[in-house]
Amino acid sequence: MKRTKIKDILLSNTLKAEKTLIKGWVRTKRESKNVVFIALNDGSCLQNIQIVLDMDKFQQLELLQRIHTGASLSVRGLISESLGSGQKYEIIADQIEVLGEANPEEYPLQPKRHSLEFLREHAHLRFRTNLFGAITRLRHAMIFAIHTFFNEKGFVNIHSPIITGSDAEGAGEMFRVTTLPAQNPPVTEDGKVDYSKDFFGKETNLTVSGQLEAELAALALSEVYTFGPTFRAENSNTTRHLAEFWMIEPEMAFYDIHDNMDLAEEMLKYLVNYALQHCKDDLLFLEQRLINEEKQKKAEEKSAMNLIEKLQFVVESEFVRVTYTEAIDILKNSNPNKKGKFAFPIEKWGADLQSEHERYLVEKHFKKPVILTDYPKEIKAFYMKQNEDNKTVRAMDVLFPQIGEIIGGSQREENYDKLLNRINELNIPQKDLWWFLETRKFGTVPHSGFGLGFERLMLFVSGMTNIRDVIPFPRTPKNAEF
Amino acid sequence: MKRTKIKDILLSNTLKAEKTLIKGWVRTKRESKNVVFIALNDGSCLQNIQIVLDMDKFQQLELLQRIHTGASLSVRGLISESLGSGQKYEIIADQIEVLGEANPEEYPLQPKRHSLEFLREHAHLRFRTNLFGAITRLRHAMIFAIHTFFNEKGFVNIHSPIITGSDAEGAGEMFRVTTLPAQNPPVTEDGKVDYSKDFFGKETNLTVSGQLEAELAALALSEVYTFGPTFRAENSNTTRHLAEFWMIEPEMAFYDIHDNMDLAEEMLKYLVNYALQHCKDDLLFLEQRLINEEKQKKAEEKSAMNLIEKLQFVVESEFVRVTYTEAIDILKNSNPNKKGKFAFPIEKWGADLQSEHERYLVEKHFKKPVILTDYPKEIKAFYMKQNEDNKTVRAMDVLFPQIGEIIGGSQREENYDKLLNRINELNIPQKDLWWFLETRKFGTVPHSGFGLGFERLMLFVSGMTNIRDVIPFPRTPKNAEF
Repeated sequence: MKRTKIKDILLSNTLKAEKTLIKGWVRTKRESKNVVFIALNDGSCLQNIQIVLDMDKFQQLELLQRIHTGASLSVRGLISESLGSGQKYEIIADQIEVLGEANPEEYPLQPKRHSLEFLREHAHLRFRTNLFGAITRLRHAMIFAIHTFFNEKGFVNIHSPIITGSDAEGAGEMFRVTTLPAQNPPVTEDGKVDYSKDFFGKETNLTVSGQLEAELAALALSEVYTFGPTFRAENSNTTRHLAEFWMIEPEMAFYDIHDNMDLAEEMLKYLVNYALQHCKDDLLFLEQRLINEEKQKKAEEKSAMNLIEKLQFVVESEFVRVTYTEAIDILKNSNPNKKGKFAFPIEKWGADLQSEHERYLVEKHFKKPVILTDYPKEIKAFYMKQNEDNKTVRAMDVLFPQIGEIIGGSQREENYDKLLNRINELNIPQKDLWWFLETRKFGTVPHSGFGLGFERLMLFVSGMTNIRDVIPFPRTPKNAEF
Repeated sequence: MKRTKIKDILLSNTLKAEKTLIKGWVRTKRESKNVVFIALNDGSCLQNIQIVLDMDKFQQLELLQRIHTGASLSVRGLISESLGSGQKYEIIADQIEVLGEANPEEYPLQPKRHSLEFLREHAHLRFRTNLFGAITRLRHAMIFAIHTFFNEKGFVNIHSPIITGSDAEGAGEMFRVTTLPAQNPPVTEDGKVDYSKDFFGKETNLTVSGQLEAELAALALSEVYTFGPTFRAENSNTTRHLAEFWMIEPEMAFYDIHDNMDLAEEMLKYLVNYALQHCKDDLLFLEQRLINEEKQKKAEEKSAMNLIEKLQFVVESEFVRVTYTEAIDILKNSNPNKKGKFAFPIEKWGADLQSEHERYLVEKHFKKPVILTDYPKEIKAFYMKQNEDNKTVRAMDVLFPQIGEIIGGSQREENYDKLLNRINELNIPQKDLWWFLETRKFGTVPHSGFGLGFERLMLFVSGMTNIRDVIPFPRTPKNAEF
């Protein structure tokens, strides 16, 4: 007999009073005099199915004593309409096998509230909680939605390299990748580490972005995207930073900054709508979690909208598009700036925007997602297209409620001379980027792209507040467990 | 006016004699007295579209002289039925803009045959060739097919960590990931490198497999898969090895080895069939390339089947399932073994199989894909389920023509004591695997999984013979360019 998934039983609209075989993990066991109820979960959906044991017929008491929270069971029984509330169907068991026990003295996930911190320390088991089951299914749905969105548009997925000899952003603290001995590495005549003896014959690092390589592909295949891990060796112990995170980086030939904004807005709405369509139960659970979490908070610290309301709002809103210059004016004249409420007061044009400013624009001023464009060139990367004012570049950042910047992108500088000048101004070594420069020499075209931090998207869609809780095994300073 | 993709024009079945705007890169230009023909490609499909310039009407001679192979154009014109052979439609141009020139003295990709080696050295431009356009679109199709296959079955995609503190295979040469200075790293009192001062507070490496983490998720969500980069610091300069490659690793609770084999066979057939259904033009091109390449070869070295025939054959064949022990008998008594034709003669049970043996079984003996099971435990990993004979484990390797092993997998040892014994026998440090062991302590269940090397699949489906030609930016010893 083949196993039936719990999801397939609970989703079915017509009761088939059939013998069935289900397998899963015990969430709870309740005993009364004649009946035992077991809530079983197999991860196929949020809901457990209720197993009913009639103790008059089912007399294996020894077996029952081996069943605790966390144990794994194989159950044969009859699907029946449930008389209890909260579930449509239940299983009247006639045969139970304990596949694996879970000693209640030792198993960490007892049926009580665990802190998120405790669950992080048990990341090998936290998939078995309602919360991380919901987040992990949602994460899968978002991954699949991303590939579906781009595939339908004819984009080509590119695996950009993880190990790289160049630093795409011209800055960024990077992880070195090496096979040289840590102790007494080979040295050159002048006493420096001899990277020519390293695996790749030179110093290599983990990528901080696949953009530059994606550009190479876009300048042949027109529309491409990457979806892969990226790395920052920043010593930031915050709820917003990971040392290892996933990025989606579309790159499109023949797109100007307006086409780029259109694509970013369309993509975000598609993804959020996909979650609403495909993950309703998990979202309802996450919404309730957030409500519970915020119960302790003061009114002004609570989210203005519930989770699902907020997601629907993004799908239905037209994103506001304003220039950096306009935004600076708004911020300079804003109440929090005048009253000294910003940790970083906005004094003049050229200031880098912090999360507090981004959230003010989105949550207080416009009350909609915002796309800011045309930033000062000094605070943006070398490859962005220079405007004729010689002060700003064709950057575009998408700002979201709660998150701040969720997407950063730009039209790219396609002019060889202008790009080379900027590289020289910033003292970026040309020899690392000869291949990037050559694309501006041979058949260059206007093109654009952006980067979406996948875990930022996950924070937004799940309503979680710590980025370590939306990736299975977070990598942060002093932490690479599991 | 919005750009139309060349694919959308060529695929349309009804001629719309409309004004249209296309953009792309020049592949060739042919001039006759009154007409100029330009073959333009935008990467949306293999085919170029022909641009026709009537020189009586179109008198910008200066502009024409700037158009060479590799230049990028924006063309407005009328879609018309083509009188020439080989294409259905062409564009009668009435306006052309050169977006970017390509100096024929400098542009490396002139319209002639380039060696694969030359193209590898120009990996930033090789996307612009028919060959790498075809391979890259095919690679995308396989990526999307993998996600679609698993999503339809209810599997959950897991991003397993890239930076890891453990060595999943208990062997394997790994890349170290570090932010310690290469020169004079901090040392402990006894003079050793002090990894507690490294970014993660301990020694970390690039993952060789996401399997162990996928198991954690499977033991909660039932059916999961990873699809991510993996790394081997092996100093192998062969046509089959990469230092950085992508793996698909499904992991399923409640699957025994037979369920595991069924899934592997179903998946491979799905993927190959997807390529046949979605990439016909690119496959026809790749088939012709292989025929041309093999023209020089002796009859016995040529492929027995053409590419598409071979793919269809896999979709239609039932894979043969035999044990390692049976395979050893076949190999021992085979003609090449008796005649000393194997580089590694098969003398007795226990021998590790080489590619030559795997290919003999598939290509000569069974003439079908083969799944070998129940290997000697000594030549397989610690986590495989031990058979009762105490000699073999529930391993399963899928062997393909041309490729040899394309999938390696097993049922996993779910018994805590047996797994612990094996870990101790092999002197694997328990402290690195406490979390893995705990899954066998709390609600353990029979489970299975396998790994598919994505570039091995790509070699098979594309008919390419060097693995460096099926990944955009290959990483190999002494090579991390781009």
